[in-house]
Amino acid sequence: MIMQEFNVAILGASGYTGGELIRILVNHPNVKISYITAEKHAGKMVSEVFPHLKGILDLKLEKLDPKKVPDDIDIVFAALPHGASAEVIHEIYKRKIKIIDLGADFRLNEGNYRKWYGDHPCSDMLEDAVYGISELNKEQIAESNLIANPGCYPTASILPLAPLLKENIVDESSIIIDSKSGVSGAGRSPSLDLHFCEVSEGFKAYKVAEHRHSPEIEQHLSEYSKKDVNIIFTPHLIPIDRGIFSTIYVKTDKEYTTSELLQKLKDFYKNSHFIRIYDEGQFPNISYIRGSNFCDIGIKSIPEKKSAVIVSVIDNLVKGAAGQAVQNMNIMMDLPETTGLNLNPVYP
Amino acid sequence: MIMQEFNVAILGASGYTGGELIRILVNHPNVKISYITAEKHAGKMVSEVFPHLKGILDLKLEKLDPKKVPDDIDIVFAALPHGASAEVIHEIYKRKIKIIDLGADFRLNEGNYRKWYGDHPCSDMLEDAVYGISELNKEQIAESNLIANPGCYPTASILPLAPLLKENIVDESSIIIDSKSGVSGAGRSPSLDLHFCEVSEGFKAYKVAEHRHSPEIEQHLSEYSKKDVNIIFTPHLIPIDRGIFSTIYVKTDKEYTTSELLQKLKDFYKNSHFIRIYDEGQFPNISYIRGSNFCDIGIKSIPEKKSAVIVSVIDNLVKGAAGQAVQNMNIMMDLPETTGLNLNPVYP
Amino acid sequence: MIMQEFNVAILGASGYTGGELIRILVNHPNVKISYITAEKHAGKMVSEVFPHLKGILDLKLEKLDPKKVPDDIDIVFAALPHGASAEVIHEIYKRKIKIIDLGADFRLNEGNYRKWYGDHPCSDMLEDAVYGISELNKEQIAESNLIANPGCYPTASILPLAPLLKENIVDESSIIIDSKSGVSGAGRSPSLDLHFCEVSEGFKAYKVAEHRHSPEIEQHLSEYSKKDVNIIFTPHLIPIDRGIFSTIYVKTDKEYTTSELLQKLKDFYKNSHFIRIYDEGQFPNISYIRGSNFCDIGIKSIPEKKSAVIVSVIDNLVKGAAGQAVQNMNIMMDLPETTGLNLNPVYP
Amino acid sequence: MIMQEFNVAILGASGYTGGELIRILVNHPNVKISYITAEKHAGKMVSEVFPHLKGILDLKLEKLDPKKVPDDIDIVFAALPHGASAEVIHEIYKRKIKIIDLGADFRLNEGNYRKWYGDHPCSDMLEDAVYGISELNKEQIAESNLIANPGCYPTASILPLAPLLKENIVDESSIIIDSKSGVSGAGRSPSLDLHFCEVSEGFKAYKVAEHRHSPEIEQHLSEYSKKDVNIIFTPHLIPIDRGIFSTIYVKTDKEYTTSELLQKLKDFYKNSHFIRIYDEGQFPNISYIRGSNFCDIGIKSIPEKKSAVIVSVIDNLVKGAAGQAVQNMNIMMDLPETTGLNLNPVYP
Repeated sequence: MIMQEFNVAILGASGYTGGELIRILVNHPNVKISYITAEKHAGKMVSEVFPHLKGILDLKLEKLDPKKVPDDIDIVFAALPHGASAEVIHEIYKRKIKIIDLGADFRLNEGNYRKWYGDHPCSDMLEDAVYGISELNKEQIAESNLIANPGCYPTASILPLAPLLKENIVDESSIIIDSKSGVSGAGRSPSLDLHFCEVSEGFKAYKVAEHRHSPEIEQHLSEYSKKDVNIIFTPHLIPIDRGIFSTIYVKTDKEYTTSELLQKLKDFYKNSHFIRIYDEGQFPNISYIRGSNFCDIGIKSIPEKKSAVIVSVIDNLVKGAAGQAVQNMNIMMDLPETTGLNLNPVYP
Repeated sequence: MIMQEFNVAILGASGYTGGELIRILVNHPNVKISYITAEKHAGKMVSEVFPHLKGILDLKLEKLDPKKVPDDIDIVFAALPHGASAEVIHEIYKRKIKIIDLGADFRLNEGNYRKWYGDHPCSDMLEDAVYGISELNKEQIAESNLIANPGCYPTASILPLAPLLKENIVDESSIIIDSKSGVSGAGRSPSLDLHFCEVSEGFKAYKVAEHRHSPEIEQHLSEYSKKDVNIIFTPHLIPIDRGIFSTIYVKTDKEYTTSELLQKLKDFYKNSHFIRIYDEGQFPNISYIRGSNFCDIGIKSIPEKKSAVIVSVIDNLVKGAAGQAVQNMNIMMDLPETTGLNLNPVYP
Repeated sequence: MIMQEFNVAILGASGYTGGELIRILVNHPNVKISYITAEKHAGKMVSEVFPHLKGILDLKLEKLDPKKVPDDIDIVFAALPHGASAEVIHEIYKRKIKIIDLGADFRLNEGNYRKWYGDHPCSDMLEDAVYGISELNKEQIAESNLIANPGCYPTASILPLAPLLKENIVDESSIIIDSKSGVSGAGRSPSLDLHFCEVSEGFKAYKVAEHRHSPEIEQHLSEYSKKDVNIIFTPHLIPIDRGIFSTIYVKTDKEYTTSELLQKLKDFYKNSHFIRIYDEGQFPNISYIRGSNFCDIGIKSIPEKKSAVIVSVIDNLVKGAAGQAVQNMNIMMDLPETTGLNLNPVYP
Repeated sequence: MIMQEFNVAILGASGYTGGELIRILVNHPNVKISYITAEKHAGKMVSEVFPHLKGILDLKLEKLDPKKVPDDIDIVFAALPHGASAEVIHEIYKRKIKIIDLGADFRLNEGNYRKWYGDHPCSDMLEDAVYGISELNKEQIAESNLIANPGCYPTASILPLAPLLKENIVDESSIIIDSKSGVSGAGRSPSLDLHFCEVSEGFKAYKVAEHRHSPEIEQHLSEYSKKDVNIIFTPHLIPIDRGIFSTIYVKTDKEYTTSELLQKLKDFYKNSHFIRIYDEGQFPNISYIRGSNFCDIGIKSIPEKKSAVIVSVIDNLVKGAAGQAVQNMNIMMDLPETTGLNLNPVYP
């Protein structure tokens, strides 16, 4: 058997998502990382901006120019800041190179995009983009050349809710999502808000009921379930490096036991390696998935109130970004979905 | 002017709440700590179990025996583990010594107590106990000899909700309280769950929809608002030492702007030194109240959904325990409410 | 008795040291904070840059102009960034206002200053400045109008070493100081190095054997002991907010038991409220002094090697900055040294 | 090519070292984990004591009985508490099964063992045991059936010092090792010392100049360099999960530049994949090796004092325990040394 090898480019390799893509892809048996870019750090070796990669990847960071992405690149991962991203992707897409965009530009339909960001810089491409929530959109992902990789909060929210909405178990108009994120979700650019002392031993909410991941969650849950899903979403910052924890409050159409609800999810995800549904009385902890591509889910039903509390956790840099991106690449390249993703959780 | 001085006893002085009582009371101008007990550590100096108190309080920990609490003690703070507590308090109460109980034994009425804990060991005293939520029950506290000092989660939940419920602004049957607590709230006894490595860089929910603070919140909100209040309550553990952060989701009776809701609270608490209501667009952070007796509150209204998100934070060891206990002592002893409580937040 | 009240100005009130000065001084019985400045944040209320001060100090941050410091100011605390500082202080000093400078400009003699920083901008004032290590230089401090408040690392190093050097117990040429600091010691300006994720769960050395606190330690230990003290100094960064921990390795002139060495320090500091010397077998922990003005010291002698390991801890923002500055103010103003400094350690 | 597969047993699989062995070995291409034990948790599935392993290893924890270790086991990893260990290993060793002992029982020679622990329970085996510091003892490891896997502090200390001692660059009698460890190094058993709130935001020294890793470092550095090595060793606790940071102070035989010293180590370790020597001016950070088997080393020479400061970091659970154990297994089994150890650092 001849092992396929793909040439991969990473645009925006000096941020946390870029670094995580490298951590995963250097061990991927079918991948060669051959081109990496970084705006501010162009010209440096990647181990200068990420000393942990010393001896692991010896490659120079290039100035980003979509025209200079080499012709032999099979797939591009774009982990660019918002705004810098759409035009670059447009250029590359025209060259018929497969793209997985980890930014927000192609996740919303035109109406939602306009409402939250303004006019879309290349709205003609929006139709081509497939939302890369791997477990739910596998077939479309396999046939697409442009993946809008989901945001971290949306991944943790959509995975547990989509099956329950589709089966009409959960009321689509009264969903409350109380999410908590580790600090790496805010990126690597320094700011007072992210200064160690401002975050450590603290806990805060931010963008209460006005975070841009809110329409992303609503749109894709709506599309998937064919309902008009409506959420209240509050993100919070936890003083830890990695991880998202979502506590989701739903109303159910009738009284369910906890185990009935869990069984629905177990059935739905029985072939999904990266989704781990907990048994009754057990709940996930961010520690249990650190560094891995898992999404862990637990539920507590409150039948007398026709309500349930759903808990889901992911590593925001893995299943919430780089890991799911690689999972999508595997699907696009017709490789087993788990290739290169045997990232066991690092505990403690 | 002659300065009054009270003799104070602390029962259970080797736990975090006991240590916090000492931190506050040694600086209180009207207090002399003259008697402290600890079960396991009896016979040791307090600075052996709390080295930070070296040179601050040189007192020996006694074996707890309610009959040996000296006659000249004016007020007893009981910070005892559940179960050890009720009978001890009964004994002291019979001796006509004022008591502030920081445990859970006298917080629930008989029916609720039985449902969650079983038969109450001294139910005859339940009627005498006043729930010590200082800002709401000041008059009863002033005349009581037995204060049931509120739990930490209930304090953070009741303070923002009570005024809104009383004014019929908030629907009493659909309240969701998503709370997050620092680790000191779980006490000082070692266990695997509290091992540094099991907590650090993690985040988890526990006792989902079945925590014992749930009936405490419901009962006292109901009594205060004369309504049958019903909540869904999920506690979580944050990897920090101190602090409670509650994100509360409510339905409102009509559409309110954020500033209207904030104004209701500002009016209600205009004479309450320890309640700080934030302006629109601002939200509290646990860091802002660390070490202090403040309860900080922010609100975001979502008028189109007739909903609001309320955020409240306290230091679980201060306003959630020792600080509120001292505030109650001040009220009972007819001192200015803030005496000895000028504990500025320690930031960072 | 009439209580004296001083008008105090804080220059550079938006950094961590400035914030800590406010935390302490608002509770000081003899102080009124009447003037505060901040470069970038001029025009804002202090509670906008430090929300924890909401309701505690309602004062506007002024643009720094040394000529506009009001005439009725009795004492100025300068917590300015290096470079911004010397000329401002010069201007104020000419106006005969007492100054405590928390920056580095007046800590070194001219020779040392030139070697590490270049020409001194106002070298004529260097002779007037008194090094404000309160316990050692009390008499000079009492008579000075210009205090060079010590650096945090120097405070933690000089306090345990000075007595042992003066009594010829310790070899002055072979001292090794391995220091570890919390992150607030690096200031409040954002930078990649101080980003939460770059610090959290890490530990690093920096400026190995070339930190600017090195000559400060050497000069003042030399002056005090009349010897030519020579150290190797390595600072490290601990992922915590506050605290300095110094592990100091010394050679002794003969074999000492641990308790002999401890006794030397206990005797020396027997009237120093803020110095706590531990008993044999006990060692300080940064937790034990958090938020307080204490310097805690422990020692282990290794007589067979004529060596000893000394451990000292301080809170870098208190005894290492704002607390010692207030202690110096008390000495200058002829108040009891501990006035306003009953800051019990916050544990946990 | 036929891939060899070994059956592996892990004794003591419910501690952090056991969990880390599982994390690594489930991905090792030549290993099948077929037998795991745990004293207290016998009978449970491993994912009950380590929920992060859910879906990764479905195996029951057995009661430890050395006679019941199956006959087809090729190699045993023993991660047992001290005391429980020696006899168990004796029993297995008699059955001619290869053993890697991660405990302390076979690391010291008889004289040192007696001095620190008392009589050795099976001193006849001491001669057979090879000290498993992989990079230095590769040949002996390859031929041994009993490996004493080094302690975490010794690994971080011996690797940088051994080459410099052997080449007579460093004075063997004046070495000072100031080490700092993450909390997982203290094991998983709950105790007050390891309670989150006692560790978090603190920093302490412990067993100052009397830690049991001290003789281990001295003995093996002495054996390797044929000198009588003598150290002063102070361990400290950092409030992080993983990692050891050693700052080592040495005297050199003459004046060296930093780059000369670095070159010595680069030459010595040029074929050692897991040793990364930094360039001048660069120093390692615990973050850079988290989760990996690397030992990173930096040096600063102080030629005018004929001294140098050496910094080395490892992940205590990987290179300091499970990773080095697997590296030793690879050597014993004649596999490439890096097999299964492509554990990229997890950053942040």
